[in-house]
Amino acid sequence: MTLTKVSSAKVAGGWHQQFSHSATSTACAMRFAIFLPPQAGPNNPVPVVYWLSGLTCTDENFMQKAGAFKKAAELGLAIVAPDTSPRGDGVADDPEGSYDFGLGAGFYVNATQQPFAKHYQMYTYVVEELPALIEANFPVTSQRAISGHSMGGHGALMIALRNPSLFSSVTAFSPIAHPTECPWGVKAFTGYLGEDKKIWTQYDSTLLMQNKSTGPAALVDQGDADNFLQQQLKPEHLQQAAKQSGYPLTLRMQAGYDHSYFFISSFIDEHLAFHAQRFG
Amino acid sequence: MTLTKVSSAKVAGGWHQQFSHSATSTACAMRFAIFLPPQAGPNNPVPVVYWLSGLTCTDENFMQKAGAFKKAAELGLAIVAPDTSPRGDGVADDPEGSYDFGLGAGFYVNATQQPFAKHYQMYTYVVEELPALIEANFPVTSQRAISGHSMGGHGALMIALRNPSLFSSVTAFSPIAHPTECPWGVKAFTGYLGEDKKIWTQYDSTLLMQNKSTGPAALVDQGDADNFLQQQLKPEHLQQAAKQSGYPLTLRMQAGYDHSYFFISSFIDEHLAFHAQRFG
Repeated sequence: MTLTKVSSAKVAGGWHQQFSHSATSTACAMRFAIFLPPQAGPNNPVPVVYWLSGLTCTDENFMQKAGAFKKAAELGLAIVAPDTSPRGDGVADDPEGSYDFGLGAGFYVNATQQPFAKHYQMYTYVVEELPALIEANFPVTSQRAISGHSMGGHGALMIALRNPSLFSSVTAFSPIAHPTECPWGVKAFTGYLGEDKKIWTQYDSTLLMQNKSTGPAALVDQGDADNFLQQQLKPEHLQQAAKQSGYPLTLRMQAGYDHSYFFISSFIDEHLAFHAQRFG
Repeated sequence: MTLTKVSSAKVAGGWHQQFSHSATSTACAMRFAIFLPPQAGPNNPVPVVYWLSGLTCTDENFMQKAGAFKKAAELGLAIVAPDTSPRGDGVADDPEGSYDFGLGAGFYVNATQQPFAKHYQMYTYVVEELPALIEANFPVTSQRAISGHSMGGHGALMIALRNPSLFSSVTAFSPIAHPTECPWGVKAFTGYLGEDKKIWTQYDSTLLMQNKSTGPAALVDQGDADNFLQQQLKPEHLQQAAKQSGYPLTLRMQAGYDHSYFFISSFIDEHLAFHAQRFG
């Protein structure tokens, strides 16, 4: 597997780098970003926090706006941010060009519907292909945590719940917590997965959590001034599911915060510390 | 003076807000951003750090990418970021549309040449109009510091050197340290100020510093992997000027860092602490 370096910049004593590679799962070139803390090296591999971004984002939004590197450097954590969908010539997009479906909106599922099934295999990319690539090419351990925002918060929770042996902890900001019951989720799942709602359930964090009493420790932060809270995000459904099953979820409503990266930057240090504590 | 609120978001326990107003000096609508730390209030006014951005930027780049709010909240500092030029209908731009002259490239001078003189009065805007507006409308003291990046580093140093009673300290990242001797500066000064190089000298930090033995304490950080270092930035000229006059300048060459916000985010906390210490 060949990695092509797209950029490299020193930050917080470590390095931010972008790479592109030809991905098998999504059958296209994929770009990702990695932050390597100063202490990472062949003789000192570090754990990895995977970050999944929200609608319209690329690998760049978190890396430029979250302000996470100082704490990650202090804790000795690598951070890896994939893109939010396949891209490039031949990759199908929403014919209407909407922001919440198609390019920039892969929803971290494996699409079964045409014309999306060929490239929109983001679940396999994030769960299998990307971690294997990272662990083969960078000074990291196989310790993994996962986090994300909005659509990426959905992705992080859903992926951790389905793969408890692969991730030691999961955190999310403003996740789409119950996608089968909100407009963003219904639109995406219908388009990528078809009308059979039984398939949808395996990608819904609320439905997954209500049947699991154990799994990666989960921390969710949600701003109460978030414009998408009531119609799209529904964290109270996730909390109810955790209550029902006994799942180890901590949901924190944060007074006055909205859906933006200003919110993420305010609490990302605490999320990184949460992951570092579980890495031990 | 009417301020129109453009946006408001909670961050790091404080608030990031954008406002627009009809500016007298630049004869157009100007937008600026302000961060107010959590402790700021009518009974607890806080000092202000003014941030001047570089070429192509607006009030948003620093606020979204510098990761400065946690430290500013801890230290109890407000941060104000103006735009980098006048904008809007009727504001002249470079006829060639280049990135380094005209819109987004005001260079913090008062233009004397047509068609720029009418609106490109950024020196007066930053030195007089904006601070007066901030101090009349927000819970801040009259304690001021100034900082900036690249073109804004030039602006911060030049403004502090010319107004030592208005700013208690100045810091800069990768400043255009000797604009009368580099392509960016010569192009801008010719376009805004004309051919008379005597007028240029009042806007050149190296020339100003070499004749001043006292003034606001100055800290400059410069990455040694900055692509613009040799041709455009020339910090060694500034250091030579300080050596000649005895000016209190600390120049730090930072190994491996480039010209980007990754560099700024790595050291902004130290710059804020430098200003806070001088505020006392």
